[in-house]
Amino acid sequence: MRSPIPDYLQEILVKCDAGGRGAVADYIPELSQVDLERRALALCTMDGRLYTAGDADTRFTIQSLSKPFVYALALRDHGLDAVLEKVAVEPSGDAFNEISVDEATGRPLNPMINIGAITTHALVGDPDLSNEERDARISDGLAEFAGRELDRDEPVYSSEIRHAYRNRALANLARSRGAFANDPLDVMRGYTRQCSYRVDARDLAVMATTLANEGVNPLTGEKVVSGWVCRHVLSVMATCGMYDGAGEWMSRVGMPAKSGVSGGILGTLPGQVGVGAFSPRLDHKGNSVEGVRFFEQLSRGMGLHLMELPPVGVDVLRTRRDAWIDVHYSGRRDDALGLQGPITFASAERVLRRFEEVDDGEQEIVLDFSNVTSVNHAGRRMLLEGMRRLVDTGHRVGVVDPHDFLPEPDLGDGRRPFSPDDR
Amino acid sequence: MRSPIPDYLQEILVKCDAGGRGAVADYIPELSQVDLERRALALCTMDGRLYTAGDADTRFTIQSLSKPFVYALALRDHGLDAVLEKVAVEPSGDAFNEISVDEATGRPLNPMINIGAITTHALVGDPDLSNEERDARISDGLAEFAGRELDRDEPVYSSEIRHAYRNRALANLARSRGAFANDPLDVMRGYTRQCSYRVDARDLAVMATTLANEGVNPLTGEKVVSGWVCRHVLSVMATCGMYDGAGEWMSRVGMPAKSGVSGGILGTLPGQVGVGAFSPRLDHKGNSVEGVRFFEQLSRGMGLHLMELPPVGVDVLRTRRDAWIDVHYSGRRDDALGLQGPITFASAERVLRRFEEVDDGEQEIVLDFSNVTSVNHAGRRMLLEGMRRLVDTGHRVGVVDPHDFLPEPDLGDGRRPFSPDDR
Amino acid sequence: MRSPIPDYLQEILVKCDAGGRGAVADYIPELSQVDLERRALALCTMDGRLYTAGDADTRFTIQSLSKPFVYALALRDHGLDAVLEKVAVEPSGDAFNEISVDEATGRPLNPMINIGAITTHALVGDPDLSNEERDARISDGLAEFAGRELDRDEPVYSSEIRHAYRNRALANLARSRGAFANDPLDVMRGYTRQCSYRVDARDLAVMATTLANEGVNPLTGEKVVSGWVCRHVLSVMATCGMYDGAGEWMSRVGMPAKSGVSGGILGTLPGQVGVGAFSPRLDHKGNSVEGVRFFEQLSRGMGLHLMELPPVGVDVLRTRRDAWIDVHYSGRRDDALGLQGPITFASAERVLRRFEEVDDGEQEIVLDFSNVTSVNHAGRRMLLEGMRRLVDTGHRVGVVDPHDFLPEPDLGDGRRPFSPDDR
Amino acid sequence: MRSPIPDYLQEILVKCDAGGRGAVADYIPELSQVDLERRALALCTMDGRLYTAGDADTRFTIQSLSKPFVYALALRDHGLDAVLEKVAVEPSGDAFNEISVDEATGRPLNPMINIGAITTHALVGDPDLSNEERDARISDGLAEFAGRELDRDEPVYSSEIRHAYRNRALANLARSRGAFANDPLDVMRGYTRQCSYRVDARDLAVMATTLANEGVNPLTGEKVVSGWVCRHVLSVMATCGMYDGAGEWMSRVGMPAKSGVSGGILGTLPGQVGVGAFSPRLDHKGNSVEGVRFFEQLSRGMGLHLMELPPVGVDVLRTRRDAWIDVHYSGRRDDALGLQGPITFASAERVLRRFEEVDDGEQEIVLDFSNVTSVNHAGRRMLLEGMRRLVDTGHRVGVVDPHDFLPEPDLGDGRRPFSPDDR
Repeated sequence: MRSPIPDYLQEILVKCDAGGRGAVADYIPELSQVDLERRALALCTMDGRLYTAGDADTRFTIQSLSKPFVYALALRDHGLDAVLEKVAVEPSGDAFNEISVDEATGRPLNPMINIGAITTHALVGDPDLSNEERDARISDGLAEFAGRELDRDEPVYSSEIRHAYRNRALANLARSRGAFANDPLDVMRGYTRQCSYRVDARDLAVMATTLANEGVNPLTGEKVVSGWVCRHVLSVMATCGMYDGAGEWMSRVGMPAKSGVSGGILGTLPGQVGVGAFSPRLDHKGNSVEGVRFFEQLSRGMGLHLMELPPVGVDVLRTRRDAWIDVHYSGRRDDALGLQGPITFASAERVLRRFEEVDDGEQEIVLDFSNVTSVNHAGRRMLLEGMRRLVDTGHRVGVVDPHDFLPEPDLGDGRRPFSPDDR
Repeated sequence: MRSPIPDYLQEILVKCDAGGRGAVADYIPELSQVDLERRALALCTMDGRLYTAGDADTRFTIQSLSKPFVYALALRDHGLDAVLEKVAVEPSGDAFNEISVDEATGRPLNPMINIGAITTHALVGDPDLSNEERDARISDGLAEFAGRELDRDEPVYSSEIRHAYRNRALANLARSRGAFANDPLDVMRGYTRQCSYRVDARDLAVMATTLANEGVNPLTGEKVVSGWVCRHVLSVMATCGMYDGAGEWMSRVGMPAKSGVSGGILGTLPGQVGVGAFSPRLDHKGNSVEGVRFFEQLSRGMGLHLMELPPVGVDVLRTRRDAWIDVHYSGRRDDALGLQGPITFASAERVLRRFEEVDDGEQEIVLDFSNVTSVNHAGRRMLLEGMRRLVDTGHRVGVVDPHDFLPEPDLGDGRRPFSPDDR
Repeated sequence: MRSPIPDYLQEILVKCDAGGRGAVADYIPELSQVDLERRALALCTMDGRLYTAGDADTRFTIQSLSKPFVYALALRDHGLDAVLEKVAVEPSGDAFNEISVDEATGRPLNPMINIGAITTHALVGDPDLSNEERDARISDGLAEFAGRELDRDEPVYSSEIRHAYRNRALANLARSRGAFANDPLDVMRGYTRQCSYRVDARDLAVMATTLANEGVNPLTGEKVVSGWVCRHVLSVMATCGMYDGAGEWMSRVGMPAKSGVSGGILGTLPGQVGVGAFSPRLDHKGNSVEGVRFFEQLSRGMGLHLMELPPVGVDVLRTRRDAWIDVHYSGRRDDALGLQGPITFASAERVLRRFEEVDDGEQEIVLDFSNVTSVNHAGRRMLLEGMRRLVDTGHRVGVVDPHDFLPEPDLGDGRRPFSPDDR
Repeated sequence: MRSPIPDYLQEILVKCDAGGRGAVADYIPELSQVDLERRALALCTMDGRLYTAGDADTRFTIQSLSKPFVYALALRDHGLDAVLEKVAVEPSGDAFNEISVDEATGRPLNPMINIGAITTHALVGDPDLSNEERDARISDGLAEFAGRELDRDEPVYSSEIRHAYRNRALANLARSRGAFANDPLDVMRGYTRQCSYRVDARDLAVMATTLANEGVNPLTGEKVVSGWVCRHVLSVMATCGMYDGAGEWMSRVGMPAKSGVSGGILGTLPGQVGVGAFSPRLDHKGNSVEGVRFFEQLSRGMGLHLMELPPVGVDVLRTRRDAWIDVHYSGRRDDALGLQGPITFASAERVLRRFEEVDDGEQEIVLDFSNVTSVNHAGRRMLLEGMRRLVDTGHRVGVVDPHDFLPEPDLGDGRRPFSPDDR
């Protein structure tokens, strides 16, 4: 069977045709030479399956779409506190305040506006890095997010540099407030280089998915950044990613997102999907006219919205024996608790509730993690505490854990669960 | 076994003791007479299990915590567009701009600041309702969210009214901009009554869970508002709920939330949990000092963060036969695809991928929904399209759907899947 | 001879015809019923000569033009510090911030925006005055400024009251910040009454002249307020009188001024002239379109601009004996110093310079104040100090002072100047 | 006799001692090396008499005090409209908005904040000037205002350049908005050079007086700029000169003024006086702590306040024959009208009023301008019109005008006044 998903994406492309509304960025001639008929939509799953429609191979410069990723690199290098000390994370309100800063501290308001992104650029790597070393570090980092080496569009870079009076201003302003100690002209040039890497919609989807996937690139399997980095970067994208209009974007689309002046938008739904879109004409806020529509359509049509998540954990216990296939296709099962799906707070709470039903006595309880897909720190902590209490009240607890979700489980006083297989 | 969760909540209460920092609201004497030693934390699951710690029965006035719920009632009554026409949904930035409005349209910036909430109050029900009728409508609505009738604190109401010059100002201001046609004094009085209902932390948790649960009250099972209302209200809480500091709250806590001047905070994680907290001392922004800490602790300790969601859909197919309990406790199974968990875009995509592996030919494929917990519109749409394509390429598709997740499934040209049980 | 000044004013009326541009205020029907063809210009000198052109008898409601005068009454009643404590004196920048207040103190930014004017209204007289008593006090005060009793336009008042949601809001807001302790509804009603007095362009010119004339009404000769009150009120009009655009108004017109929504504008040039203008159509800032033009024309054509003042004091000494009339028409004069004109810092400095030329010795110096028109505190102080020094160095100083500009002049150690007439 | 004025200034210095309050600017080491004990006050009259107290010879860098003068040079070079097109003239409100610009047009808000001053610098002379040529033009212009060549403090210049990240930012920002086409780094360097000229309090007083004196340097007699330039520059200083706090400065001091970070303040009262002050310690707004006090004291003590001007024109006619010296020292006089003082609108109005008293008939009226000190365009226009009307009604008008205030007076139809001397 041929998957209907590419057809669906193609439908969206057609349905969202804006009839030429909007205008391509033309502050440098290179940007205005884009083929106005190109548009693309790409979607990448957590395990790296890519679906595309339209001109998913068409390359354009990454521009502001680089901001969340370079921010992630800075966080990876220096930790949350050190980066927050330099750049705040509050929405900037209206576009006109793009230069403005946190009044109390003088920090740029967030890393998604230019002055914050320029500051963030300077934060990547050791402060003493040469310009070339910092460029290389960023080039490597972006490649890890995209799963391939990205090349730069040199004509765009050269042209931007010739017109970058505003970014020069911002770099000097940031420098004057002590945001960094480097030469502001160097930082501005580095930032402009960062913006000139060439990507396509497919790359954007993969990069978005890496953020959605706790930092693991779905194509390469490489852990690019830690989970806390992704959580923080996505939080910032959620409130500051789409310039002004954070509230409306959250309501209408509900995905942490970022747009770029070359017409790209990327969005991400943690744990589910990463999306890349491209269409060169921009609205007055600088977002791709059709790109915004693609996301609205995808969110509405596919329920891809942060606030529209399915109940988690309901089915963690395979105790119900009434599934048709259980009855009609196979034999029987006893007390052992077969867990399934991800074990988080909500699913662990269900398991603990099952434990509560265990009467006093000296029962044998077996937990089977074979069908479990992931266990987060809260889930692990809660299950171990539950097992500990069972043991404390006289029960025997066994664990089947082929994926090693509970490494060296300690049930107190050196006690460990028994392994049924060993019997 | 006794659940460790209440103990964990109790631990949080102890751990987050702020040593008397902050000050209770004292703009009216009634508020300052609160018992400063009270604090509470309550957590409610999607299916209505309540966990509490501390003084979960201590009642306090609902104040601003009523805002998201009355907003939900206005949305229920008039639809999204009509309400958006009156009140925008953008963060207000700093607290000082609390009066400010969308420059272009004159609308209050969002329904979580007072001027927006006062306008929202007037939007509940038919414009021609008498004051008593509007009060009754709101009283009923809040009761549906809480799962019990709420009574009002009349002394607080009377005292607030005597000091409500600011809210009188806001009601008149909104009236002067045409936000409503009612008498502003009536609206202010109605809004003040709305704020004087008495709740406890447990109520807050239940009300939060109702929003997290697509509008279904977890205690009564009643559908209070539609899913789209919850999605929208939670979006607005995510960007505007905690006054200024939206970015930092999203990063540090990651739950749509709302606080009130009486010391309550409620937060919600869609599909997972609702939380209510109470501690009367406030910080300079007007949020409960300890309440904020409770949420930070809960988010960090239990991974309750919007951006920290587990991968969805990974385990939708029970095709792997290597679970220990499958091997050791039971028999065998054949081609039938046993689905499990929620069917959303991400899980449906996995199923479609399995369909792609189906070779051309005249195979028989059975989908068993017995262990499925929910199917959203995207999941339903995608699976039906997949089945349609299988049938179009000559296969036979059977469905076992005891919960009726796919009512009257149409595979095109009037074709329907066969029912294996019928054989 | 017939004075050319009325003809000149008439020329301005014709020259500044805006061809119907602008729109009359129509937020209440009564205001929109004005005769659109009416326009007037009136100019009043320091000694009460009135020149008018156009419909100088056409009455309209005073509206915001009452603000500087009621502010003056509040200053008269409570002194500068007490009033500044309640209302600041900084320009409000853009019109949109009309509600905004001094961030540090919560005071209304200035008394010329509505919230400041409402607060100012409440400051007139003793806080315990009844509404009727405060009304009477303001009515009396405005009559003193205008030189006649003013009556109120009751239909306008009633209509304003029915629509005054915004002013109700501002009164409540001011009350909520502790600007006054009165009932905000009472204050709003009183303020609306204050705005409903009927004036004509002639009244405006007289009222403006009273401010220009150190508080002395040029028609009645009555001292309405002290000089310091006028100085302060004019300062505030200079920076805050014409809403936004303070800088451009100062440059283009250069007169402290105030406009009203009924189409009146009044302006004043301290020590020179007061001007009243009327034309009902308003620009988008709420200023009379033609009224603004009248002032621009008058300022440019007649050099009536604060920054275009003639050198002061140059001719204070009538020592030059070369005037044609002195030579041809009359006899001779000796050492006595005949002073003339106003004695201020700049003119007193000239006299002191003449004293510096007095050689050591025992000369007799006579100062004749017969032709002096005024002596301010600085002039008096400087001349007395100069005379003291002359006496200290052995000279004899005589004073002829028929207007008693130097009451009981003390030259130190009880010495007094001699009186030449007594000899 | 020794003038008491220097003693008075000295008293002010002592009285305003701030006891070391405030802090010297230390953003570059050179500025912080100033002798903290230095303070000076200088006052210059319209005819160039200088009074000083304290360290009036102590030199410091001109810094922001250069702004109004370079703005005057730009106005001289390009006219008002061309300059207004680039830089607006509205107060900037709070200091924090120093970067902000007119929202509608993108122009810097005014030429007294850095971004406006940098733009203004680039406007001096032909756009194609080399940097050296522009420097020379500004150097020459400042010398004309001060009445002497000014030298530059090269160490301060070099140090500023090394730290001028903020001004680099502003220059780039202005460039990015098209404020000028020059290289922003060149403009920033030129602006920094402009700020590094060395002046003393005496220079400031002379420069201020040149603005007060319609552009005529009181020492050299040179006409540096036109009257309209001074009028406009003083208007801008009145509303934008002292950063925020325009309203309070206008009320408390009432002189158009400008301050600099090196501790200087200059103020000017049109037609009366220019003042220069110096004391290095600054308040949090960047104004000299003691310098502000000097001005407050001088304004209050000497009545030097824009809104405290003496009535003008009252004594224009020497018709009163009752002055003691007229009676006691000399003979008699007949119908001839001896005018005196400045002839402006207000004084010409008095003369016209006298003309109105002239009965029909064939009288001979003589106007004697011997004692007149100045005639502005309005005064000339009004008197000529009055004389014309007298002639039209049959009278004979004679003029004695030794200072040639009425060059080639045309009374219509080629008629001229007769000259009494010719008889």
